[in-house]
Amino acid sequence: MFKATIDAYLLKDSIETLSVLVDEARFRISPEGVIVRAVDPANVAMVSFDLTPEAFDDFEANDCELGLDLSRINDILGVADRDDKVQMELDEESKKLKIQIGGFSYTVSLLDPSTIRAEPRIPQLELPAEIVLNGKDLQKAVKAAEKISDHMLLGVEGESFFMEAEGDTDRVKLTMTRDQLIDIKPSEVRSLFSLDYLSDIIKPASKSNEISLHLGNDFPIKINFSIANGNGSIGYLLAPRIESD
Amino acid sequence: MFKATIDAYLLKDSIETLSVLVDEARFRISPEGVIVRAVDPANVAMVSFDLTPEAFDDFEANDCELGLDLSRINDILGVADRDDKVQMELDEESKKLKIQIGGFSYTVSLLDPSTIRAEPRIPQLELPAEIVLNGKDLQKAVKAAEKISDHMLLGVEGESFFMEAEGDTDRVKLTMTRDQLIDIKPSEVRSLFSLDYLSDIIKPASKSNEISLHLGNDFPIKINFSIANGNGSIGYLLAPRIESD
Amino acid sequence: MFKATIDAYLLKDSIETLSVLVDEARFRISPEGVIVRAVDPANVAMVSFDLTPEAFDDFEANDCELGLDLSRINDILGVADRDDKVQMELDEESKKLKIQIGGFSYTVSLLDPSTIRAEPRIPQLELPAEIVLNGKDLQKAVKAAEKISDHMLLGVEGESFFMEAEGDTDRVKLTMTRDQLIDIKPSEVRSLFSLDYLSDIIKPASKSNEISLHLGNDFPIKINFSIANGNGSIGYLLAPRIESD
Repeated sequence: MFKATIDAYLLKDSIETLSVLVDEARFRISPEGVIVRAVDPANVAMVSFDLTPEAFDDFEANDCELGLDLSRINDILGVADRDDKVQMELDEESKKLKIQIGGFSYTVSLLDPSTIRAEPRIPQLELPAEIVLNGKDLQKAVKAAEKISDHMLLGVEGESFFMEAEGDTDRVKLTMTRDQLIDIKPSEVRSLFSLDYLSDIIKPASKSNEISLHLGNDFPIKINFSIANGNGSIGYLLAPRIESD
Repeated sequence: MFKATIDAYLLKDSIETLSVLVDEARFRISPEGVIVRAVDPANVAMVSFDLTPEAFDDFEANDCELGLDLSRINDILGVADRDDKVQMELDEESKKLKIQIGGFSYTVSLLDPSTIRAEPRIPQLELPAEIVLNGKDLQKAVKAAEKISDHMLLGVEGESFFMEAEGDTDRVKLTMTRDQLIDIKPSEVRSLFSLDYLSDIIKPASKSNEISLHLGNDFPIKINFSIANGNGSIGYLLAPRIESD
Repeated sequence: MFKATIDAYLLKDSIETLSVLVDEARFRISPEGVIVRAVDPANVAMVSFDLTPEAFDDFEANDCELGLDLSRINDILGVADRDDKVQMELDEESKKLKIQIGGFSYTVSLLDPSTIRAEPRIPQLELPAEIVLNGKDLQKAVKAAEKISDHMLLGVEGESFFMEAEGDTDRVKLTMTRDQLIDIKPSEVRSLFSLDYLSDIIKPASKSNEISLHLGNDFPIKINFSIANGNGSIGYLLAPRIESD
C-alpha cells in the first residue's frame, strides 16, 4: 500500500537527482519514507536517495517496491504547475500508479522491479578531506572546465580547495580559500573526474546552497546535499579517472 | 480593388489561424470583408475564416480574389513591431500586393488563385453537444495528452466534458464539470481526434478566452472562436479518427 | 611585454567585432594600444580594429604580436560575468597568455603569428556618399532584406538613403530621409552587397547608436563605429557584388 501527496516542484527536483544517472529506478517504500539506491549503466556513479514522510503533505505506506520509468514521470510533471499538488496512489491489483495532478488523472504502468538493475552496495570509504560550498560555485567551476577539457582535477592544497582542468593547449585553475568556502576539513588530496558525470550531477546539486564534497587521493568523490526543504538527502559517489601523467 | 490598413498583430494572429493548416490560401475580398475557406492537404481539417471591415482601420474593396503564400506574409510580418500599422494595396495590373509597414515598402507577387486548391464545401453537421471553455484549458489538455499518445478522445459524460488519451501503457483523463466550463449543452457523445491536428489548431485557439466545441458520436469536431477583437470569426472542422477498440 | 586589465563586457564586444569575420587574429600590441587588421578567408571583407590604452583599466606593453584563437577567448569570456575584470599577462618564455577572471586563472597557448594570414593592406578609396545612422536601423533593414533575398542594394537618391532587396517574386525597399538619419553627405550612388556578410557585420555594429557608412557606385562599403566607450574604433570594408541587371 502506498498513498501520498507532495508538491509538484519537490517531486520534480527529487526525480531529477535520479534521472541524471538512470532512466528507470526501484523506489523502496516503507512507513519510514522512500529510498532509492542506483548506479549508472557504466558503473561510474551511484546515487543514494532518501525522502522522509515529512517531505509529503500526506504519506501512508506499507513496505513495497515500485519500478518507475523516470522520463515518463518527468513528462507528466512537465505539464504541472510548480505549485500543483501531486497525489499518488498505488493500485496493487493492476500494478499501476494513479497520479492526480492539476485536474488530470494519470494511470501509469509500473515496471517489474526485478527487471531493473539491482541496488548497488554503497562502499564505505575513508575520504580524509571535506569541503562545504555553495552548489553554484561548483557549477561555475564545472562550466569553466568544460570549455577546456573533458575531465577535471579536484583537490585540497593547504587550507584551499582547488579545481583544475587542462586541455591540449590551455589550462584553467580555480582556488577557493577557507573564507570563500562554507567550511573545509583540509587534507592534501587530489583526484581526477569525468566532466560528463560532473556536469550531470551538478544540475540538481547547483540548486542547493550547501553541498559537501568528500575527497581522497585517486579515490571516488562523495557529493552530498539535502532536498525537499531538509526532508530528504542525496548522496552521489563518482569514481575517479586515472591521471595519465 | 482592395486597399486596407490593419494592426500588425491582428494580421499576424489572423494569418496564423490559416497557416496552421495550409501554406497558400485564396482570400475572397468584397465590401463586406475578407473570407477564406480552406482544407488541409490531407483533407482532415477545414478552416472558415471571416474578417469584417471593422477589423481594419481603413477598408476599401470591390469583389476580388487574392492568392497568397502565407509563409511569405508571415516572414514580412515577423520584422514588424506588434503595434505597427500594415497598409495593403492591390496593384491589379501587375498582380502584386503592395504592403507598407514600419517604413518598409514590400511588393509581393500574388499567386494565381486558380492554382490554389478550390474552396471546400463546408458540410452541415448536426452536433448535439456544445462546450464553451477557455482556450488555455483545452491547450493544457492537448499538451498533457501529447505526452501519452498521438490521439485524444473528447466527449461528454453527464454534465461534464472530458478528454482522455491512452498510450501503450499509460493513460490520462481530464474531466471538467459545468462550473469549470463557461457553458455546456450536454449530450452523451465521444469522438477520437489526431493530436497532430489538435496541437496545431490549439495554437491560435489558445489565445482566445472563449472557444466553443461542437461534438457528436464519431463525428467531426467544430472549434469556433472570434478574432480581431470580435470583428472576425474562425471555425475549424476536424475529422474524427476511428476508435480501434 | 604585455599586461592589461579590462572589463569583461568590453573585451567580449571587441572580440566579437573580429570573430564575425575570422577565427584567428594577430594582435599587434604597442604602448599606443592594440591593433588588428584582418581579412576574411574569402577575401570579401576586411576589418580594422584599434583599441587605445584608455579602453583598459591598466595597460603596460612593449611592441609585441600575439596570435589568438578567437573562439577559445570567447569560450573563456562566456563563463565570465558582464562586470568581471579580465587581467591578462603575456608569459614570453612559455608563449602563453595568462588570464585572470572571476577567480579563475587561465593559461592559453598563443598561436604562432606567422601561421596566421598576414595583415591585409587597407585600400584607400574615394567614397563620395556618407550616411550616419543608428546601428539598429541598419540591422532592421538587413533583417527585412534577408526574408526576401541573399543580397541587398544600398544607395543614396537625392537626400535620402535607401536599401532595397529583390527576390524572385518579391521586393522590399526602405527609404530614410535626412530627418530620419543622424547625418548624410549625399551623392547619387548605389552598390550591391552580400547579406551573408552584412548580417554578420551588423551584429556588433547594431550595438552602436551611431555608425557611419561610406558608399560609392559599385564600390566597397565602409562601415565605421566606435567601441569601448569611444576608446576604440572599428572599420569594416565589404566588397560589392555585381548587379546582374
